[in-house]
Amino acid sequence: TGTAAQPAWLSEAYPDVLPVNELGLRQTHGRRLNYCPTNPQFRRLARTLVHALAQRYGDHPALLFWHVSNEYGPTCFCTNCAIQFRLWLQRQYGNLEELNQHWITSFWSHTYTSWEQIQPPTALGENSIQGLHLDYRRFMSDANLACYQGEASILRELTPHIPIFTNLHGLQKSLDYFSWAPHQDIIAWDSYPRHNTHPSTTAFYFDLMRGLGQGKPWLLLEQAPSHVQWHPENPLKRPGIMRLQTYQAIAHGSNSALFFQWRQARSGEEMYHSAIISHAGHERTRVFREIADLGAELHALDNDLLQTAPQARIALLMSWPNWWAVEDQHTPGTTIDYLVELQRYYHALWQSNCTVDIVSPETDLTPYTLVLAPLLTLISKEQGEDIERYVEQGGTFVTTYFSGMVDEYYRAWLGGFPGPLRRTLGIWVEEFDPLPVGKTNTLLSSHAQQDWDGTYICDHWCDIVHLEGAQALSIFGDDFYAGSSAITENHLGLGSAFYIATRPEDACIAALMSKIQTQLGLTAPLQVPQGIEVTQRQHAQTVYTFILNHSSTTQRIALPQPMCDVLTQQSHEQDIVLQATGCAILRPLPQNTIQNEERFSQ
Amino acid sequence: TGTAAQPAWLSEAYPDVLPVNELGLRQTHGRRLNYCPTNPQFRRLARTLVHALAQRYGDHPALLFWHVSNEYGPTCFCTNCAIQFRLWLQRQYGNLEELNQHWITSFWSHTYTSWEQIQPPTALGENSIQGLHLDYRRFMSDANLACYQGEASILRELTPHIPIFTNLHGLQKSLDYFSWAPHQDIIAWDSYPRHNTHPSTTAFYFDLMRGLGQGKPWLLLEQAPSHVQWHPENPLKRPGIMRLQTYQAIAHGSNSALFFQWRQARSGEEMYHSAIISHAGHERTRVFREIADLGAELHALDNDLLQTAPQARIALLMSWPNWWAVEDQHTPGTTIDYLVELQRYYHALWQSNCTVDIVSPETDLTPYTLVLAPLLTLISKEQGEDIERYVEQGGTFVTTYFSGMVDEYYRAWLGGFPGPLRRTLGIWVEEFDPLPVGKTNTLLSSHAQQDWDGTYICDHWCDIVHLEGAQALSIFGDDFYAGSSAITENHLGLGSAFYIATRPEDACIAALMSKIQTQLGLTAPLQVPQGIEVTQRQHAQTVYTFILNHSSTTQRIALPQPMCDVLTQQSHEQDIVLQATGCAILRPLPQNTIQNEERFSQ
Amino acid sequence: TGTAAQPAWLSEAYPDVLPVNELGLRQTHGRRLNYCPTNPQFRRLARTLVHALAQRYGDHPALLFWHVSNEYGPTCFCTNCAIQFRLWLQRQYGNLEELNQHWITSFWSHTYTSWEQIQPPTALGENSIQGLHLDYRRFMSDANLACYQGEASILRELTPHIPIFTNLHGLQKSLDYFSWAPHQDIIAWDSYPRHNTHPSTTAFYFDLMRGLGQGKPWLLLEQAPSHVQWHPENPLKRPGIMRLQTYQAIAHGSNSALFFQWRQARSGEEMYHSAIISHAGHERTRVFREIADLGAELHALDNDLLQTAPQARIALLMSWPNWWAVEDQHTPGTTIDYLVELQRYYHALWQSNCTVDIVSPETDLTPYTLVLAPLLTLISKEQGEDIERYVEQGGTFVTTYFSGMVDEYYRAWLGGFPGPLRRTLGIWVEEFDPLPVGKTNTLLSSHAQQDWDGTYICDHWCDIVHLEGAQALSIFGDDFYAGSSAITENHLGLGSAFYIATRPEDACIAALMSKIQTQLGLTAPLQVPQGIEVTQRQHAQTVYTFILNHSSTTQRIALPQPMCDVLTQQSHEQDIVLQATGCAILRPLPQNTIQNEERFSQ
Repeated sequence: TGTAAQPAWLSEAYPDVLPVNELGLRQTHGRRLNYCPTNPQFRRLARTLVHALAQRYGDHPALLFWHVSNEYGPTCFCTNCAIQFRLWLQRQYGNLEELNQHWITSFWSHTYTSWEQIQPPTALGENSIQGLHLDYRRFMSDANLACYQGEASILRELTPHIPIFTNLHGLQKSLDYFSWAPHQDIIAWDSYPRHNTHPSTTAFYFDLMRGLGQGKPWLLLEQAPSHVQWHPENPLKRPGIMRLQTYQAIAHGSNSALFFQWRQARSGEEMYHSAIISHAGHERTRVFREIADLGAELHALDNDLLQTAPQARIALLMSWPNWWAVEDQHTPGTTIDYLVELQRYYHALWQSNCTVDIVSPETDLTPYTLVLAPLLTLISKEQGEDIERYVEQGGTFVTTYFSGMVDEYYRAWLGGFPGPLRRTLGIWVEEFDPLPVGKTNTLLSSHAQQDWDGTYICDHWCDIVHLEGAQALSIFGDDFYAGSSAITENHLGLGSAFYIATRPEDACIAALMSKIQTQLGLTAPLQVPQGIEVTQRQHAQTVYTFILNHSSTTQRIALPQPMCDVLTQQSHEQDIVLQATGCAILRPLPQNTIQNEERFSQ
Repeated sequence: TGTAAQPAWLSEAYPDVLPVNELGLRQTHGRRLNYCPTNPQFRRLARTLVHALAQRYGDHPALLFWHVSNEYGPTCFCTNCAIQFRLWLQRQYGNLEELNQHWITSFWSHTYTSWEQIQPPTALGENSIQGLHLDYRRFMSDANLACYQGEASILRELTPHIPIFTNLHGLQKSLDYFSWAPHQDIIAWDSYPRHNTHPSTTAFYFDLMRGLGQGKPWLLLEQAPSHVQWHPENPLKRPGIMRLQTYQAIAHGSNSALFFQWRQARSGEEMYHSAIISHAGHERTRVFREIADLGAELHALDNDLLQTAPQARIALLMSWPNWWAVEDQHTPGTTIDYLVELQRYYHALWQSNCTVDIVSPETDLTPYTLVLAPLLTLISKEQGEDIERYVEQGGTFVTTYFSGMVDEYYRAWLGGFPGPLRRTLGIWVEEFDPLPVGKTNTLLSSHAQQDWDGTYICDHWCDIVHLEGAQALSIFGDDFYAGSSAITENHLGLGSAFYIATRPEDACIAALMSKIQTQLGLTAPLQVPQGIEVTQRQHAQTVYTFILNHSSTTQRIALPQPMCDVLTQQSHEQDIVLQATGCAILRPLPQNTIQNEERFSQ
Repeated sequence: TGTAAQPAWLSEAYPDVLPVNELGLRQTHGRRLNYCPTNPQFRRLARTLVHALAQRYGDHPALLFWHVSNEYGPTCFCTNCAIQFRLWLQRQYGNLEELNQHWITSFWSHTYTSWEQIQPPTALGENSIQGLHLDYRRFMSDANLACYQGEASILRELTPHIPIFTNLHGLQKSLDYFSWAPHQDIIAWDSYPRHNTHPSTTAFYFDLMRGLGQGKPWLLLEQAPSHVQWHPENPLKRPGIMRLQTYQAIAHGSNSALFFQWRQARSGEEMYHSAIISHAGHERTRVFREIADLGAELHALDNDLLQTAPQARIALLMSWPNWWAVEDQHTPGTTIDYLVELQRYYHALWQSNCTVDIVSPETDLTPYTLVLAPLLTLISKEQGEDIERYVEQGGTFVTTYFSGMVDEYYRAWLGGFPGPLRRTLGIWVEEFDPLPVGKTNTLLSSHAQQDWDGTYICDHWCDIVHLEGAQALSIFGDDFYAGSSAITENHLGLGSAFYIATRPEDACIAALMSKIQTQLGLTAPLQVPQGIEVTQRQHAQTVYTFILNHSSTTQRIALPQPMCDVLTQQSHEQDIVLQATGCAILRPLPQNTIQNEERFSQ
């Protein structure tokens, strides 16, 4: 809708539209997303523009959907934000006394006696009240969402049949996409993996998009034809990579493949961002040809495929408030990268070629056989109860150290960690030992369970755990707490709950996931070599199996039954061979079809 | 006294109370120590609060002493600070002409023609006048002290018998603790060694506290029961460490052991700082038990011990103005860390288990057999004369490169370095050669003295020295000044003075100290293995010998005579065995006592 | 002229004279070069001072030349700069429409609709319009030049016979010295090589100074007698280094050797900068003696030498706008250091002991046999035509990857890279692949030319090149573009043009330069061992050959004919031996002179 970069005349006419940064300094005009998200003039003029746009193009036959603004995310600390923030807080807490209690402002005599004393938390001001920081993040996410809603409400009124969305990107830490998702008719994702991004990380974001959309097909709105210009390092995409990444998106639930950008701008910040048509100005380029070929291939695909979707029995919980809490500046250990830790667990599941939904802790967990929630520091009483009930009713739950620490206002859970998960996990964490960088401990098997053996390395953090019903699978090998529990399993009702009291190496995570998955019958559709990704989309009896070769060599994959590759229309009886960057989308062949083909080939 | 964190209503009512930072930007309300130390409203309201406090609690039977504010240190660059700074300068210099001469403002035509032209040295302004920077540091230290004094004067009036102090911490570079010390009834120290802090560094601060108090017992006001949350890495304190560190404080002259904090706050910056009572809310924890056990042990100790104190024959000179001067941004070499260099010399003495006082260059040196003053860049004419007289009268003095460079206004000493120390040291430093990082030179023995041999590495800086009466002990082995003097000794009157014209490796410092200490009869009370610290407290004939095992293994220490450990009440005839983190406090056993005990044990 | 550091009373009286920094914050008084270069009061008062100066000293017999201000370079972003910048833009573009077209402001709807919307590009504002950034750099360079011109015009009027200049330094990225040079009666250079600066880098700047002055003798206005205090590391200059560096300057076209500074200031930023007279206050120092000896030696030199100058057949193109463009923040690859890359090519030529002129792309290239222009990203249509014509008429041209990308407004060249150099080079660059740090490719010989063999490493960037008439000398060895052209030669008219589609290792650059130089007959006057620099100054038949020993060992250099060293007046028949840091200035001996000398020596 063209509202992501306000024109210069607007900034000139309404200087307050420019945001105030972390140092309390007002930005000057330039770039894009350079506005205060609470500014009333900006919101009014954005709505005016969108109204005119909808009136002019609302009936245009080429109008497929509305893409509102672009990659939201501006943060501001101006006076108007301060005013709006106080109103937001009044809605949350009602009165100052409640706010003071929820933020524990009595510490260091920070008690507020008037609403005006509450200031946006710039780098020049308050950084010792975690509740303030959490709530300002919630407020800023809401303020951005209100900008979106302001435009969307007009579009919805004027063109009620046209889907509306904005593009999600990043991953943007400042926007709680789980609170945005219900307002998107389509979940649209800008996919910009770096040259060295692991395919499982790319898949993580794809599965998150599917989770945001509660399983609906999501839109691959942007990807680069070749290189970008804004990563620290921007090598071009090797031949075949763009196609492989597109099929990976489809394998994870997208029904689309769009690109940024059609043609390179002659100057400006993105002049060196790749395009379908480069500065050379014609189509006789490798990049154009690869996209044209892909387009033809997609056009020829079964329409059936569009009706299918990935189906998961495993959920990985992710939450923005928890992200903010885990990476708060006053945590006991050295910095934790929440996404990286989530992705390490996701990676183990991805390698097992089982489909995973990435969902919020607010989601109904009952459809899932297995639920993982690494580093669930921030957890409400209700979430704790939901998880406990889920386990009691037969679910399997896995969490880690630094979980169950604070409630949704960042108040420590009293009475023993992990707070509301203590009964579910059957443990009490008396102390935690954040390790210096480079220091490790060892995980030894307790030999309590026959299918759990092996010695592993761990680092970053070790909890000192008391068993309160749980059983130790692994114990620590070193330090004064050698012998104490490091990985535990607790049986509760019909289910069980695992606790990982440290950060284990990848191999340990993989082994533990494998043990649990085996126990629960969560197995891959195909056995494949390393570097091959397998995933399925299905609908009723229709099943498509995607095989993606992320490795740099040719790979032979054994098939459990004769299958047809819908990309090539070729049949494969016992196996299929894929070159590096190669893909296949397989459907089972009816038995007689094969015999026919065999006759043909004789 | 609750004045370290002004409440939000105060910042709201008096916005000028908020300090202006190095970029000239005014902070907003938040955290603590977030006030301008010259602000009259802050000072007035702090006094009002303290007055009310003293009136309410002055007669309370539990009132042991007044702890004013907390960990002083705010720095400000606001308009009022500018005004107060000019008044401070007028008191120092009388008129502008004097100021211009002392600051050498004629350089780059910086001559001031009105007082108003003098601005606090923010990052946006003047950074090329060292005198301005030195004096602004002195002024800010004084402004903080005036805040303290404002409160203390009321307390002194209302509760004349209650001791008053604030807690020293850091080490805080911005406050000249030697100018603060005379105003403290007790020197109180917040001891927060990191997990990898060497025990000699912890001891360095303890001995500085004793030096600040001129030998009086000092107060261990704060230490963490276990981990903190504000170091880059915060592992918990291993069992026994807290006890060992407490006895080390006592060994170095504290008669106390207090903790921060009793109970963890439920949120806020310090919610993850360890406490005697953790978030679990009860006493059934390792940390509680260790503190309770220590308390019982301390309670059972001899009262005699409180009458004793460490007695030193060695002094290490430290001075805040010199610290500021050594680390000035316009020095010739790469950055020097003054504390680290002081601690390297201290470390050698600590390893020798000889007691050291850390005192100011203003201190009377005559009680000391040996005085060290590494990196004494800034030295007044009077200090130079004092040191010269000290040596003439029989003292031994040791200093290093980058000494005797500037006077107390940061004006170079003319006529040949090391300025006022030139006659004492019997040398002229014609040139200095600050070495690039990683480049080294070699120290070879001159073979001038039989007890000085060995080859060592040095780095950072090499002086080119002319002997003017001194004798070379070591010479440089490399570069165009190979053969020139690197370590010299000069005999003057009844004493002698050593100059170390470079930064030698630790082994060289240890060897040189050992040579000098042997010569002067400064020997350890006990010969102990590495990792064992020995120190003594005494009063008249009463001597307590502390033995502290900082190593990670069990150690056997031979005793020169039968002794009793007052911690265990056990006798040890020939030796004592200490486990890792173990301590003993030994008193000699009267001969007959032993015989008695021997009889008992037969 | 004393205008580089305004006095405090001036900043106090005219606060607007203080510049506004990148964060939009106004500096406070202090240091030097701390003024806004567009400030009318500053300019007026500077002219007033200079007028008074010229009136008082214009007839002084010691007045040799006027040195205006000192090391220009202040940058400012204040309101007055904004106003002046808009006027500057109006002169460049006439109207807003033209400006919008040249800056491609339609991208991201950045179109300006009033001049007032254009703001200086601070860190708080517009950073996505390259044209704005380029033009602000041009404007700031011009604003500084106008300050210079304001003073110079008065001096020129009052003392028309006295040469006027300012000192160039750095290299200052913010000032386009090629636009300053025409206004300097003498090109004056402040030469401050670091202890580890390669002599070829020092020479690079010397040759640039000669290029700026179009071959005229340039002035070595400042060099340090020994160490400075402002590098990160400031070791002293070893004996002989100062002399060697002085003769190197003369070898490259200086007729002078001045020093900063006569005597050390007693305090202030430069108190530890070396001086002819140190803080010791007398002349009995090594540094004084070396300078005095050099002075005597220079005094005794032939006056003939002053008439000679270096003569180059090779040109290296350098341009400030290109520098700004190459290092723009939105380039596709990781950061390129333009000067370092230029110096890598220069280094290869320097090692070959051929004289190089460093000149602007605007220079008439016809006198040169060989022209190098590494990384010529920014190139105008006219410059492209000039180079094409130069090659057609017999010249040899060498350029590299990331050349021919944008025009002088930073608009991409459309229709195929390298834009206006495409026909000259006979290639089309379809794609470029900026490599991640640490990743390399291999250069293999295509075996197309007999004198080009060898395998090399390259990194940083690889172009995918189509040959359009050119021939490949080297091809890439790795990656999907293995086999494609990496180094090409194109014959056009009477000349040829080389393209280096990557960043090769030094050895490859040296080999390629050697091949091209051999082909063109560009050979050294003498064959010398590594570490020896040879250069010549000549005038008509008079030729002086400088031999400089930059190595750390004694070296023997064979002479092609008997020669006399004018420094020692000694004759050398077959060779000359130079110690480390030694120099010789040789003239050929007439045959009979030698015989005479031989008779003498018998």
